[in-house]
Amino acid sequence: MKVSVLFSGGKDSSLSALLLEPFFEVELVTCNFGLLPTGEIAAKTAAELHFPHRTLSLDREILEKAYELLQRDGFPKSAINYIHERAVETLALDPAVKLIADGTRRDDRVPVLSISQIRSIEDRFGVQYFCPLKGYGKKVVDSLVGYYLSIEQGPSESTQKADYETELRELVRQRQGEEKIRQLFPVHFQSHVLSRKKFSLKKEENVFKNWKPS
Amino acid sequence: MKVSVLFSGGKDSSLSALLLEPFFEVELVTCNFGLLPTGEIAAKTAAELHFPHRTLSLDREILEKAYELLQRDGFPKSAINYIHERAVETLALDPAVKLIADGTRRDDRVPVLSISQIRSIEDRFGVQYFCPLKGYGKKVVDSLVGYYLSIEQGPSESTQKADYETELRELVRQRQGEEKIRQLFPVHFQSHVLSRKKFSLKKEENVFKNWKPS
Repeated sequence: MKVSVLFSGGKDSSLSALLLEPFFEVELVTCNFGLLPTGEIAAKTAAELHFPHRTLSLDREILEKAYELLQRDGFPKSAINYIHERAVETLALDPAVKLIADGTRRDDRVPVLSISQIRSIEDRFGVQYFCPLKGYGKKVVDSLVGYYLSIEQGPSESTQKADYETELRELVRQRQGEEKIRQLFPVHFQSHVLSRKKFSLKKEENVFKNWKPS
Repeated sequence: MKVSVLFSGGKDSSLSALLLEPFFEVELVTCNFGLLPTGEIAAKTAAELHFPHRTLSLDREILEKAYELLQRDGFPKSAINYIHERAVETLALDPAVKLIADGTRRDDRVPVLSISQIRSIEDRFGVQYFCPLKGYGKKVVDSLVGYYLSIEQGPSESTQKADYETELRELVRQRQGEEKIRQLFPVHFQSHVLSRKKFSLKKEENVFKNWKPS
């Protein structure tokens, strides 16, 4: 079973790919509007993780509509969710794509597809969409990330990432300047995955055997 | 990381254990009220799956309270959810248990813990609770089950299983007779796992490489 995992180079989409790896043939897919080379940034991370990767060009009109939503709301929630839904639909249009996954976690608010949006996409495009981390809380995700991945973390302004926000911020920068970015986007900590720790998945080598969450 | 997976011998809890196996040290735990030998039924399935297994005795008062809820409502939803919440709490009381998982799927309605019930348990008991299948729809689950597990399916009356409903039905049978069971419990198809298909998890042997969901 081949699964296309939407991939930003962040810890959630990277961990999702790792969790699926023993059971599926995983490819990583990064969406790009042509404003910044986010596909190349993500491709480097994908290579570090040893997964095949490709960049999916999204229609620039999707970014324009998201920009409008951002201006209307004054915060990016609807804009990011809008891009995400269109991104999943664009990927689902590929006849070779039958399974789509992403890094949505239990406590995520953005981007998140509602159950009716998911069912609509599954019905209209004949694909299955699923989220390996949807049932995982932050602590378990962080433990698995710490165990399997080397990451760098920093404020969203300075961390190199290939999520939907990256190019939306760039469009705001080009049209309205740096100051407007700070008004529209809350500063939050982003993670960027550097590489895979070379831990074996073999049970007997599991050094975390006696690990306890804090 | 050791994780205790609540285990009924059904396909969802079995598949959850399989998905966690490469990343955690898995133990299967079956809850029992002492009315029927559900622990032994589940232990056989666990042995077929090659996972360690234990039976957790639940307080009979939990079953009595569930019986009351069932009589009040006329259907088992609240009763089953009540048993599930108490079961997770009982397991969480064990100081050796830090991670608890179960087989809840995206489309499940019963038993399901709400996000506030989950957070309350995590805070009160210092454990993490998660659901590996929570982001998976029915078709992806069925595909994975068909690939990794041999199962038998049948109506809930006749299929040997070790879920919360089994002993609740038995209590109704003892006190109110067979006919009352049919009034209170909707007939639905249950799955019972027989064994593990001996497919390798190695990518190059993945015979499902070109599989497409129907």
